[in-house]
Amino acid sequence: ISSKQPNIGTTIFTVMSQLAAETGALNLSQGFPNFNCSPKLIELVNHHMKKGMNQYAPMAGIMPLREAIAQKTADLYQLNYHPNDEITIASGCTEVLYAIMTAIIHKGDEVIVFEPAYDSYVPSIELNGGKAVYVTLSPENNFAIDWNLVKSKITDKTKAIILTTPHNPTGKCFTQNNINSLAAITKNTGIFIISDEVYEHIIFDGRKHWSPSMHPELKERTFVCGSFGKTFHTTGWKLGYCLAPKELTAEFRKAHQWITFSCPTPFQYAFADFLKEPDNYLSVTQFYQEKRDKFNNWLKPSRFDWIPAEGSFFQMVSYKKITDEPDYDLAIKWTKEIGVASIPISVFYSEKIDNKILRFCFAKDDEMLEKAAEKLCKL
Amino acid sequence: ISSKQPNIGTTIFTVMSQLAAETGALNLSQGFPNFNCSPKLIELVNHHMKKGMNQYAPMAGIMPLREAIAQKTADLYQLNYHPNDEITIASGCTEVLYAIMTAIIHKGDEVIVFEPAYDSYVPSIELNGGKAVYVTLSPENNFAIDWNLVKSKITDKTKAIILTTPHNPTGKCFTQNNINSLAAITKNTGIFIISDEVYEHIIFDGRKHWSPSMHPELKERTFVCGSFGKTFHTTGWKLGYCLAPKELTAEFRKAHQWITFSCPTPFQYAFADFLKEPDNYLSVTQFYQEKRDKFNNWLKPSRFDWIPAEGSFFQMVSYKKITDEPDYDLAIKWTKEIGVASIPISVFYSEKIDNKILRFCFAKDDEMLEKAAEKLCKL
Ligand SMILES: CSCCC(=O)C(=O)O
Ligand SMILES: CSCCC(=O)C(=O)O
Repeated sequence: ISSKQPNIGTTIFTVMSQLAAETGALNLSQGFPNFNCSPKLIELVNHHMKKGMNQYAPMAGIMPLREAIAQKTADLYQLNYHPNDEITIASGCTEVLYAIMTAIIHKGDEVIVFEPAYDSYVPSIELNGGKAVYVTLSPENNFAIDWNLVKSKITDKTKAIILTTPHNPTGKCFTQNNINSLAAITKNTGIFIISDEVYEHIIFDGRKHWSPSMHPELKERTFVCGSFGKTFHTTGWKLGYCLAPKELTAEFRKAHQWITFSCPTPFQYAFADFLKEPDNYLSVTQFYQEKRDKFNNWLKPSRFDWIPAEGSFFQMVSYKKITDEPDYDLAIKWTKEIGVASIPISVFYSEKIDNKILRFCFAKDDEMLEKAAEKLCKL
Repeated sequence: ISSKQPNIGTTIFTVMSQLAAETGALNLSQGFPNFNCSPKLIELVNHHMKKGMNQYAPMAGIMPLREAIAQKTADLYQLNYHPNDEITIASGCTEVLYAIMTAIIHKGDEVIVFEPAYDSYVPSIELNGGKAVYVTLSPENNFAIDWNLVKSKITDKTKAIILTTPHNPTGKCFTQNNINSLAAITKNTGIFIISDEVYEHIIFDGRKHWSPSMHPELKERTFVCGSFGKTFHTTGWKLGYCLAPKELTAEFRKAHQWITFSCPTPFQYAFADFLKEPDNYLSVTQFYQEKRDKFNNWLKPSRFDWIPAEGSFFQMVSYKKITDEPDYDLAIKWTKEIGVASIPISVFYSEKIDNKILRFCFAKDDEMLEKAAEKLCKL
């Protein structure tokens, strides 16, 4: 078999979670909660399974769920997406991203990617015949975006720009200024914006979530990628969605219908019900802000340097004062020797730039966070 | 947006199911049961959700499920697939097929497709840069395969042959002779075999399920595509799997990890438990044989001609004695006027060949089948 991905190994998330399991380390690597979702949500799934909602959902998702998403989006952001032809349910944000790339990329098209970048972006682009063009962000200026640099990367072949807000792994959030800059540099270009917003509700210190879809000139060419996994502590249910104007949604669905066709029906009905109570998604903001604050507090005595995450459930820390070992080796070593697993940031850079930064996931119960911090403070 | 699939509309399954819902017709079109899955299975899902199995499963699937599949495959067919590196869980057989095409097809590769063909095969090939090469089967000789014709289609560019057994929509099943012929014409070619076996347990009249994986020379280049949806009346849970030798599985997983990454965890744990009792999957054979027999019996007084399905939960019938209208128009018309929805077979042919045949799904409760047959007998 002649490999189309000769250089692809196992994702870092699998590597680190497996190592944590083997060594019994506290797993602050892969981004998932170590606590359960709401019992109400489980009860809803059970209810709908018993009622017989176990057969194929419509290809675009069940209408009550699309309506609930439309309602939430209108309530929170005053944005209108029509459930009928602008909202589609897919198998997690991973499939949403993959189906977008499948829908839009023609051979040779370029997609601008900010790095550090989530690890599925570039393979999704490349497997669909595209080329990733990188804009590299650095800790020196707190991962700020130089929009002139972005502009200089735009060519005839630029099909899309992919962004993440709140950002994984940096925890940075887009501002209204960022959105305006994005609109300015892409004015009259027809470049698509792919906006990964799976942490939309996990945003701290009173920040407002800014999406390119909120800019009138960008909305018509933006794909918003959403997910229930991070918001409702159900990463293992693999349910996400795509918001996009009608014409874009039509092409998205043509891809989705061959990739997975449809998504688990009982989860869809459960989320449709659960979304009706806004507190169910609004409460996650404070919930994770408290976790971030506690984890940061417990880390205070450590020799790490860091800026508290603005959003997401990840905290990056610099370990420069402790050692200058390569971050990948160190993440492995500390999993084995200290008993705390993390993600080395270099894996999110195309050239594996090593800024001596590790990422810790704080979607963990307080006991685990305190224990982990205690171990890390001894370094 | 410049479409990569300008000629693709909505799948026939969505079209017909929607029309049936709108008109209140008995829906014998899309292939899904109108009855519920086992309450035991629902209880298992509920149990695992309550236990907290709601976060990301491993990318390849949870090990107990892979072990259970390995066990079933060994018990039933004396075939050994190693759970560690030869079995992967994916989001339904649709994703299994898509990920295989993504893994193996290089630009310009050809894949031989028997038609009538399930509607996702060709788009999966084409979106991944391949070209479908058709072998057309006809009702005149009961959809038998002319292996010399297949052989004549093989070129330097043939990357794979995709087959379906039991077959949707014809209900035909491969024989040991078919497998031997396939082995003979592909000897020393390195051509991959993609075998869609989602109806493996729905096979009638004492027939044995024959898979290319059972032929020693084919096994090493065969991808078996399996599914739980048809076997356990859970088409809406979207869980399937891929069996393939280690080297092939490695490439399959590289694709799967970017397409959906992983699949719903609670369903995986539930199926792992449920598969431990062989009767849970063995019983489906008799269950659907009885349905086929009843439906065929109730149809006896009709003016249709047909050969009873050998497998799958579909019965094709020829309506030549009733009318010579185009099958697509007729399926729509009868949904509206007679109140029974079906699938016109022409949609499964690249050139929309109209053999005056409709497909009825008999995965329906007896009452619906009897009512539908009654209406159809009046024609
Ligand atoms: C799909 S596994 C990765 C989970 C995640 O989003 C992360 O850890 O960054
Ligand atoms: C994915 S919806 C189609 C269901 C099915 O397998 C069929 O009706 O042929």
